[in-house]
Amino acid sequence: MTLDHLERLKCLKRGISGINLDPLQRGGILTPEARDALMEWGDGYSVCDFCNGEIDRIRNPPIEDFVHGLLPEFLGIDEVRITHGAREGMYAAMHALCRPGDVVVVDGNAHYTAILAAERAGLEVEYVPASGSPHYKVNPAGYAEAFQRVKDRGGRIGMALLTYPDGNYGNIVDPREVSAFCHEEEVPFLLNGAYSVGRMPLNAGDLGVDIIVGSGHKSMASSGPIGVLGARGSYAKRIFAKSALKKNKEVELLGCTVRGAGLITMMASFPHVVERVGRWDEEVRKARALCSAFEGLGIVPQGDRPHSHDLIFFEAEVLYEISKKAKKGRYFLYRDLKARGICGIKAGLTRRFKLSTYMLKDNEIEAVIDAFADIIESHQG
Amino acid sequence: MTLDHLERLKCLKRGISGINLDPLQRGGILTPEARDALMEWGDGYSVCDFCNGEIDRIRNPPIEDFVHGLLPEFLGIDEVRITHGAREGMYAAMHALCRPGDVVVVDGNAHYTAILAAERAGLEVEYVPASGSPHYKVNPAGYAEAFQRVKDRGGRIGMALLTYPDGNYGNIVDPREVSAFCHEEEVPFLLNGAYSVGRMPLNAGDLGVDIIVGSGHKSMASSGPIGVLGARGSYAKRIFAKSALKKNKEVELLGCTVRGAGLITMMASFPHVVERVGRWDEEVRKARALCSAFEGLGIVPQGDRPHSHDLIFFEAEVLYEISKKAKKGRYFLYRDLKARGICGIKAGLTRRFKLSTYMLKDNEIEAVIDAFADIIESHQG
Repeated sequence: MTLDHLERLKCLKRGISGINLDPLQRGGILTPEARDALMEWGDGYSVCDFCNGEIDRIRNPPIEDFVHGLLPEFLGIDEVRITHGAREGMYAAMHALCRPGDVVVVDGNAHYTAILAAERAGLEVEYVPASGSPHYKVNPAGYAEAFQRVKDRGGRIGMALLTYPDGNYGNIVDPREVSAFCHEEEVPFLLNGAYSVGRMPLNAGDLGVDIIVGSGHKSMASSGPIGVLGARGSYAKRIFAKSALKKNKEVELLGCTVRGAGLITMMASFPHVVERVGRWDEEVRKARALCSAFEGLGIVPQGDRPHSHDLIFFEAEVLYEISKKAKKGRYFLYRDLKARGICGIKAGLTRRFKLSTYMLKDNEIEAVIDAFADIIESHQG
Repeated sequence: MTLDHLERLKCLKRGISGINLDPLQRGGILTPEARDALMEWGDGYSVCDFCNGEIDRIRNPPIEDFVHGLLPEFLGIDEVRITHGAREGMYAAMHALCRPGDVVVVDGNAHYTAILAAERAGLEVEYVPASGSPHYKVNPAGYAEAFQRVKDRGGRIGMALLTYPDGNYGNIVDPREVSAFCHEEEVPFLLNGAYSVGRMPLNAGDLGVDIIVGSGHKSMASSGPIGVLGARGSYAKRIFAKSALKKNKEVELLGCTVRGAGLITMMASFPHVVERVGRWDEEVRKARALCSAFEGLGIVPQGDRPHSHDLIFFEAEVLYEISKKAKKGRYFLYRDLKARGICGIKAGLTRRFKLSTYMLKDNEIEAVIDAFADIIESHQG
């Protein structure tokens, strides 16, 4: 461990391009208010100055009002807590509500973290398969079939989970049919809203959802890791059960979760988040405009048609063909986009990739379309 | 949810005094480099621009070097990963290494989060009792007795845990006697270094420790929540085991943990942390100077004598007596200290409280001593 070796950690720079298309990142760009909050509350345990043992009951800063008032209203659910992220929320819910060996029935497009959460909790996974290319559709009726398969082999269903939308294709499955079925079967129904909570209008109560997770760093303009976990009625009581050994401490949260600045960034961005959710139609319009223009270039949108989310997966034989001959091969697209001030598509991808149009301005959408057109033309010319 | 209600979340201020004595917070005060890192990397998933599926293998920023090179060397252990904090590290280790129903043998001064981690993992807790007032000593030989009690009732010991130092009295128990005994018994030995890693020199290998957890926001000048989890040999393999279902994803970490700015703050502060650990003798000297002066005022240090850590617990009958007559009663101390630019002792405490001298300058230590002397005199005069 030499001094030189250490010194270079002191001033790491990110070097991000002007237009960032990374679906992971577009909803996590901080508001100016959240950036100010980072400076004011950056130090470790800064939110704990006036804690009496329960982080969600702190009144200065107004965490209690945020966690017990604003968030339940925003999500349409009885109880909410702050987590380290959507995956940690899924694990807490599975761990609290299921027994090892139980089966979780998940949509075929589920994020890998739902599967890891189940694995960590000692649960088995049964998929509701998605249709193949190009739509990758999950049929809500598939949940009944999956339940039946589990029952037929003598399995015990501990939970059903739907990813809303999924993180690969941005496909939206109506949760209401699934929730109605789960309620008949008395199986808790979890909605993974990592790409919806903070982006789209969503009310867990209206959708019949029992448990909902969201991601602050993915979709709530927060400095992560941070997420929200909401639950209704008796499920909330079990997930947020207090310790038998340590007074007033919630076991699944290990007492408290986000004990620092991230929580204040979520609070500082929340007025903006509430407001932007109301402008979701605009986001869908922009996503569709890009889909339509890309299709004209031979870059074909996959998933739902028409598409109803800013996260879009594309197949692009035209780019793949270019990659066979281009200098630097399959890295040409990353390089050519970067030269045009655009980043966020993984380096090396050309034939299949995803991007997000979330919160891009119309002129930025146009710049992206122009860049792709220009790149294709420059290699074909 | 009115607009006014939301607007006040946008600009929350902390209002902290010039001298902060909160033991939770003194080791988590950010370096200037970490504050710059928050601005550069604050956005959600900012560290993931060049991730290929394993956060600890990201080379830009140099996370791989930090996690697989610098941290293992710093901690003296085979493998290290980033966690959301010490408690999350303890839970991951217990969950991976123990079976439900196992017993965790813990020191009587253990932090509540160790108990919650055990409870969440379905484990029982057997204490190595601490002696009573005023020293609250844990005798390493007590581990053998606790093991015997568990065996006598047919229990299975899954882990032994020592809090080093504990978070109430700042008492330091030599881990070597405990680790030697645990190795004979083939029981994994976990050291909770939330108040040592990043403050004191510490080498897990030299101490015979199998698993170590540290806290970034508590003791590594990091914006939390963030921590480190180190393990040796076969324990590391089990704790950091990869998923059977999702390639290259570590189950206990749910794939990845701190996917944001906190990690870069830990890296940015690390050169400073390495350096300050080498100045630990200075910190002990300052802590003892304050102990000695406070004792002269009738504010009696508890725990180890001489004291060997910046976290100190005091009993102060003199302040308790004042509180019986003072205006605002037991809140007089908080108010009178605040008027003198000092905070960090919980409002309402007078008879028993803890504080930390960590990283305070000599003139600040003197200011604290003078303030207490002045407050006592002003009420007795």
